[in-house]
Amino acid sequence: MKPVYVGLLGFGTVGSGVAKVLARNAEEISRRAGRAIEVKRAAVRNIEKAKALAPADVEIGTDPLAVVDDPAVDIVVELIGGTSDAKELVLRAIANGKHIVTANKALLAEHGNEIFAAARAKGVMLAFEAAVAGGIPIIKALREGLTANRIEWIAGIINGTSNFILSAMRDQGKGFDEALKEAQALGYAEADPTFDIEGHDAAHKLTILSAIAFGTPMQYEHAYLEGISKLTREDIAYAEQLGYRIKLLGITKRRPQGIELRVHPTLVPAKKILANVEGVMNAVLVNGDAVGQTLYSGRGAGSEPTASSVVADLVDIARLLTADPGHRVPYLAFQPDRMVDLPVLPIEEVETSYYLRLKAHDRPGVMADITRILADLGISIDAMMQKEPQSGEQVVDIIILTHQSLERSIDTAINLIESLPTISGPITKLRLENLDN
Amino acid sequence: MKPVYVGLLGFGTVGSGVAKVLARNAEEISRRAGRAIEVKRAAVRNIEKAKALAPADVEIGTDPLAVVDDPAVDIVVELIGGTSDAKELVLRAIANGKHIVTANKALLAEHGNEIFAAARAKGVMLAFEAAVAGGIPIIKALREGLTANRIEWIAGIINGTSNFILSAMRDQGKGFDEALKEAQALGYAEADPTFDIEGHDAAHKLTILSAIAFGTPMQYEHAYLEGISKLTREDIAYAEQLGYRIKLLGITKRRPQGIELRVHPTLVPAKKILANVEGVMNAVLVNGDAVGQTLYSGRGAGSEPTASSVVADLVDIARLLTADPGHRVPYLAFQPDRMVDLPVLPIEEVETSYYLRLKAHDRPGVMADITRILADLGISIDAMMQKEPQSGEQVVDIIILTHQSLERSIDTAINLIESLPTISGPITKLRLENLDN
Repeated sequence: MKPVYVGLLGFGTVGSGVAKVLARNAEEISRRAGRAIEVKRAAVRNIEKAKALAPADVEIGTDPLAVVDDPAVDIVVELIGGTSDAKELVLRAIANGKHIVTANKALLAEHGNEIFAAARAKGVMLAFEAAVAGGIPIIKALREGLTANRIEWIAGIINGTSNFILSAMRDQGKGFDEALKEAQALGYAEADPTFDIEGHDAAHKLTILSAIAFGTPMQYEHAYLEGISKLTREDIAYAEQLGYRIKLLGITKRRPQGIELRVHPTLVPAKKILANVEGVMNAVLVNGDAVGQTLYSGRGAGSEPTASSVVADLVDIARLLTADPGHRVPYLAFQPDRMVDLPVLPIEEVETSYYLRLKAHDRPGVMADITRILADLGISIDAMMQKEPQSGEQVVDIIILTHQSLERSIDTAINLIESLPTISGPITKLRLENLDN
Repeated sequence: MKPVYVGLLGFGTVGSGVAKVLARNAEEISRRAGRAIEVKRAAVRNIEKAKALAPADVEIGTDPLAVVDDPAVDIVVELIGGTSDAKELVLRAIANGKHIVTANKALLAEHGNEIFAAARAKGVMLAFEAAVAGGIPIIKALREGLTANRIEWIAGIINGTSNFILSAMRDQGKGFDEALKEAQALGYAEADPTFDIEGHDAAHKLTILSAIAFGTPMQYEHAYLEGISKLTREDIAYAEQLGYRIKLLGITKRRPQGIELRVHPTLVPAKKILANVEGVMNAVLVNGDAVGQTLYSGRGAGSEPTASSVVADLVDIARLLTADPGHRVPYLAFQPDRMVDLPVLPIEEVETSYYLRLKAHDRPGVMADITRILADLGISIDAMMQKEPQSGEQVVDIIILTHQSLERSIDTAINLIESLPTISGPITKLRLENLDN
């Protein structure tokens, strides 16, 4: 059978990884796919660098249109990132009848609804395993492996940069700035790390997971984002003493009224496997009504791990290249005419447990005031810890863990507690997930 | 589109779970599959019990031929277990042009080569996600999610009964017999537990994983099996002190001369996620050359977790029911004409690290004798621990951890050490895997 020809948009870390894996494992891949998969063309910014890395028979140029318009290219792999050029090129490739593989989570989370509609209208395949959690085949697991289930929730460590920083803060007692510098020195964080540490990247990935778990459109604009830059060593240490670790989690949950879609630092019981996923590793925990909890972990970024997912998509597409579209797995797991429009709940409507850290003057009645405010709002306390005052200090740290509560009630409680004369300064609020069911 | 009709062979734990999940999640499943999937018929031993559990429109009888010969049945789900009746019925269903879903690891590991050939000749699909690791979609991950990779090795906790017993021995300091009794009382172990605790069940599953990882035929008859019934509390405690946990692992590894295929108790570094998979949970760690290590964990048994995998297979088959066979994923991941006949290496040729426990008389020169024997055979010592002699005892426990060595050399060393006059009784040998690369 004739090889499947691939055109690459971008030939950086991931693009060169794709070319390398396709070349090195050509035999193994064609043993599986039943045909060869070859890179025919690549469009790059830096021709010299790409020529040094690419196999000799790959045509390399700077014009991306030469790739998306080449009649000999069957599948266009979009690896340039960003949402403007990438969107234009992907839509043009679709119009040309090319199948698409992309690792671009921002593109799908922000413009996926339009792009999938275009792909459907044209009858082409569009695959994106590499867009979430790098080399972990989580899209396939959710979209095909767990089709029997009503998915209840997903909780994932899906940003390696943040997880590396949190591991360094916990293991080595580093502050956030110091841990960030280490991540930057090791190439795990960008010079401008905002996108990773403030949760944007995780929210893009979570948006995609949420859509394929629940059969909803992409709703990135309604995601709640809170990053890790304000986390302190103290909170990490207190969490540890209470038996928890703090992870930046992307959480999406089905509720009767809608869907929770939120990224924030989260206390997780230290005994849970998810709490023990360290460094740049990623992991996704999925709760389905039949299977219960399944966990998927591995490298969430890097040249060959990401290429592993891109190439798996290429093999999937190669198999169905000449098949009737009716035989394909739907892009977003659910048949396009069976999607539902569940709204994303605002963060005030979220229900979870909470970690509160207060600074209180060590006077009689403080605890009574606090616990009365919580009780009046129907918030149950799960654990409470008061630290011994340091010598000479007037103010002590009080840590409270609550049972599941509505975020709105917690915020009301915080306002009331902060206005007590015995409380000094603002209260630190973190969310806590027991991940039990 | 017309529903896909399923015939069930067996309506016990898993069969009733399949019917329940298909009924409860009918809406969610058809939103994904694009058509309904319905149980039409079931053949059971106990009609009364089945009738109480099954939806009213399912025809229930005792004759399995009524299921495999029913022209209205599209897919036969084999859940009766065992290898004689099951084999006959599956072959007959294939001859009738039915597609097959089975959870029967013994059948596939022992007769898979014949069964897959028959399915291929007849052009029917045969899916078996539920045969390995219950609800974890590990077959799909290996067969489709990791197609880019040359798989290097797999190490899995794939028998929940054994893992439960080992967790109970470690956590609660129980002996093997006591932990087994607890497992039996909780329904996690059979009255005759041999099949689980001596590694047969794990070896069946490992055989299947190995075939789809490397593209070889099933070679169950060459698997090496060693169970957990001889493990002692002492070895579990010593392992713990050295930073390891003991797990019953199924390990299959690609070596230049052939394939390792072995099930045995294994020391695993306590920090590894695999070491922290407790109780009846299963987990499979896969090492691919592009992606590195990915881990998949979840419930390895039980009614609905297993049904989750059966139903996922039904959805996969439903999608491709009318497609040309060329579009299908090959049964065993690799195209049937591209399989390789790599032999399974005998256990003496295996290379791994070892844990040795010796009882030595506390006399000068003992250590020198032992270390000279190991050095002469080219075996490097990674760690050594000598326990203080208990008051009044003449014999002390010595624990040695070796670097990677050939099993044949270790066995030679053990023979030589056991013949030393200062050594008392036989040496305990356990294998150790660092799971590093």
